[in-house]
Amino acid sequence: MKFINFSFILLISTISNFTFGQSKKQPNIIVFLVDDMGWQDSSEPFWTEVTPLNRKYHTPHMERLAKEGTKFTNAYANPVCTPSRVSMLSGMTAAHHGVTNWTSPAFNNNTDAPDDQFRAANWNYNGMSPIPNIAHTFHATPFPKILKDAGYFTIHAGKAHWGSAGTPGANPYNMGFIVNISGHAAGHPQSYLAQENYGNLPGKASWQAVPDLEEYYGRDTFLTEALTLEAIKALEQPIRDGKPFYLNMAHYAVHVPLQADRRFYQRYIDAGLEESEAMYASLLEGMDKSLGDLMDFLKEKQVDKNTVIIFMSDNGGLSLSPPRGARPHTQNLPLKAGKGSVYEGGIREPMLVKWPGVAKPGSVVNQYVMIEDFFPTILDMAGVSSTEIVQNIDGKSFVPYLKNPKLIDSTRVLVWHSPNKWTTNDGPGINYKSAVRKGDWKLIYHMRNAGLELYNLKNDIQEAHNLAGQYPAKVKELAYLLGEKLRNWNAPMPIIKENGQPVAMPDSL
Amino acid sequence: MKFINFSFILLISTISNFTFGQSKKQPNIIVFLVDDMGWQDSSEPFWTEVTPLNRKYHTPHMERLAKEGTKFTNAYANPVCTPSRVSMLSGMTAAHHGVTNWTSPAFNNNTDAPDDQFRAANWNYNGMSPIPNIAHTFHATPFPKILKDAGYFTIHAGKAHWGSAGTPGANPYNMGFIVNISGHAAGHPQSYLAQENYGNLPGKASWQAVPDLEEYYGRDTFLTEALTLEAIKALEQPIRDGKPFYLNMAHYAVHVPLQADRRFYQRYIDAGLEESEAMYASLLEGMDKSLGDLMDFLKEKQVDKNTVIIFMSDNGGLSLSPPRGARPHTQNLPLKAGKGSVYEGGIREPMLVKWPGVAKPGSVVNQYVMIEDFFPTILDMAGVSSTEIVQNIDGKSFVPYLKNPKLIDSTRVLVWHSPNKWTTNDGPGINYKSAVRKGDWKLIYHMRNAGLELYNLKNDIQEAHNLAGQYPAKVKELAYLLGEKLRNWNAPMPIIKENGQPVAMPDSL
Repeated sequence: MKFINFSFILLISTISNFTFGQSKKQPNIIVFLVDDMGWQDSSEPFWTEVTPLNRKYHTPHMERLAKEGTKFTNAYANPVCTPSRVSMLSGMTAAHHGVTNWTSPAFNNNTDAPDDQFRAANWNYNGMSPIPNIAHTFHATPFPKILKDAGYFTIHAGKAHWGSAGTPGANPYNMGFIVNISGHAAGHPQSYLAQENYGNLPGKASWQAVPDLEEYYGRDTFLTEALTLEAIKALEQPIRDGKPFYLNMAHYAVHVPLQADRRFYQRYIDAGLEESEAMYASLLEGMDKSLGDLMDFLKEKQVDKNTVIIFMSDNGGLSLSPPRGARPHTQNLPLKAGKGSVYEGGIREPMLVKWPGVAKPGSVVNQYVMIEDFFPTILDMAGVSSTEIVQNIDGKSFVPYLKNPKLIDSTRVLVWHSPNKWTTNDGPGINYKSAVRKGDWKLIYHMRNAGLELYNLKNDIQEAHNLAGQYPAKVKELAYLLGEKLRNWNAPMPIIKENGQPVAMPDSL
Repeated sequence: MKFINFSFILLISTISNFTFGQSKKQPNIIVFLVDDMGWQDSSEPFWTEVTPLNRKYHTPHMERLAKEGTKFTNAYANPVCTPSRVSMLSGMTAAHHGVTNWTSPAFNNNTDAPDDQFRAANWNYNGMSPIPNIAHTFHATPFPKILKDAGYFTIHAGKAHWGSAGTPGANPYNMGFIVNISGHAAGHPQSYLAQENYGNLPGKASWQAVPDLEEYYGRDTFLTEALTLEAIKALEQPIRDGKPFYLNMAHYAVHVPLQADRRFYQRYIDAGLEESEAMYASLLEGMDKSLGDLMDFLKEKQVDKNTVIIFMSDNGGLSLSPPRGARPHTQNLPLKAGKGSVYEGGIREPMLVKWPGVAKPGSVVNQYVMIEDFFPTILDMAGVSSTEIVQNIDGKSFVPYLKNPKLIDSTRVLVWHSPNKWTTNDGPGINYKSAVRKGDWKLIYHMRNAGLELYNLKNDIQEAHNLAGQYPAKVKELAYLLGEKLRNWNAPMPIIKENGQPVAMPDSL
């Protein structure tokens, strides 16, 4: 009888241990995050029409992922990368966490360009920190740390760019990653080429030289491929141990420098693309191959049915020419402008989610979602909660939309906030802008001239027809919503040089 | 009844799982490997006498470790670093694995200095590889991989230096480490100073710039401290999971460049040491603090009683002046010469082992052991065997000596083999030498002039009295032993330029 009791206790502990370690409830999760990839940079169409851009690029594994999962047609990020990466890890919108521009790899280096009209806003230019009281950082609990504490084996591969050197955010380990492959304070690679040691040439290395890949130096392994190979190696450990894993597969591609991925470059030259666009297309296809290789690996290891894949980009496609080919700000058509802009070209993203057994293959979600939603969604998927989250989350789990793609919430308010000077010369929607979306309506606030633009995205995805004069009540409603949010979040605002005052809120005009 | 059977099966599986995951049989293991530290570079004496060098240095935590564990007075490594590191990871002696000199971080770069008399031996100058058929590498199964496969959480922190860039050995992950902190193809740090980003200054970084520590850039965290902090962070994961761990705590200290660890430097200046020696002593004491911090951490986490610590250096103390102070080759007295030499100053190491519950605190082992013994010893301690080891192991487990420190085996044969030109000018025991020890007798073979020297280490640890003329039979016996070993291992030999023939074996003279 004693034996029975004793074994019963062990039985319970075994089951709970099994549940914890290998549970069907805890899926593996991969975020496949691409850098600077535009909404149309894919042979998988995300709009109602197939565009010339869809025909220009080849991304067969994105097509495959779309067939096996859910396509989000209204997914958003911030206009530039660090704000999006911090939103993802913190669950907060950029106006709230205050990391509103890209962070310099060097400490205390405000990356805002000088301006005649404005002094720089008081934004968190050293990035996000998992530890409080670090100068010019935003303190938040990163979700990978929560996953790790819940038993997940957490891996980061590729671009990190969450915080400047000299701060804890520069070290992926501090963000909750057990394994870090090539993630650091820099936001792009010095070189994609192993022949150039990814930038690590003695006396020539910059802040952007990619760490950790010495094994490939001098060979012909393109950076995208090297990161994929290393990520796959790292995945073998948790798979063998039967531990759930989280992989942050954050490619440096397709950020500049534009360099040819020779495995794919020639086909685009043969198709008549100019050199820079052929290089860009080859970067995209190399990234797509990585996605396919990961999917194949999961299948080979028989964990594909218990692995969520979330495909995303961190901001719109670069539309400055040069370095891109074609006329400036035409690279994301039908969307207006590109990276850096609060117009759709700078913020709308190709997003795909595969969750076997939960999300219906081939489904489409038209609800607008945003990159801060990844935080609550991923914890939701993992069935993990935490009492240690120090920040107030703005994101919402998009799991309900995966389960019921027809759901629509047109009351939700999304905000973009860029009180910064990203480029030396202003561009369309670029420098000192905010924007808000509610339902199909989008209001844009131009801080320089206190101008407001109103668009209806349902009829006018191109943002060609400013309806502000036509719908003053809608302008007022959205301006108030935006102003209220910015005030509540104590959002950083540029300082008017003339009077030393912060730029006015959009609803005080 | 059915329930009982079912629960019994689970009971068994639980116990075996418990045994595998958290077993008392599987201790945690830390190898604390110092770089270029000499036998007398400690306030803990390893000789029968306390020397002026023991009084010069302060290493209180080595003293503490000696009190809590076992001191080895006759522990050996190879004359330079890569051969020792490869011997440790492969379990083989240098003459056998053929990595007989330090490896360049650059691919296919034979580091041997040019010579008038000899062409370079065909040694494995790209280092060790865990994958076969890589040019100029030695293929072996590294023991950390075996530990990892057996469920250990394996961490490397600090200097790796097992293989050149462009080969798998450059990547600690391939050697079996789940976590890698700052280990790569280079053999020393460009800078110990966080103020200099450990060498990672744009446009100034060399192969030796230390990766992975951006968090500390611009602060005042000395490299030794940063590595310790990161290693401790990484240890939290397996401790929390109740998984056994292996930590390869491989400090870059006390290798050149000599730089002041400001936490300790002034006390040595105040004691009258010249600048370079005060810097060296400060590097040593910083390393010793790291040992103490790790020991404190283990205790705080209550895993100290199940953790083995093995303290070792990879070769003798540097005796070239400059960069060292004092007269050349006096820095390891009473031992002759230093790093690079087959005399005792180049190969005898301070070694301490703490194995709670197995090795008696304060015990002393006088049996000679060597760094290739770490491989079988560590697997022995972990209770792990493997059928995947591709190499033939030369090392022997020293566990029997920990259990019975009085054991002596005077029949064992140790071999040192340096068919290389390490320094531009020959030094005492430096360049083109082999040596063999059996019992108290040691024979040295000078390849340049086919000379043989014989010493009795028991009476003459200084190697001051060449007894070759007095004991021709002993010379013959040892020369034959050495020749036999080198032939069996197909050891690399320099090529005589004059006739294109390899240097003769010592027993063919």
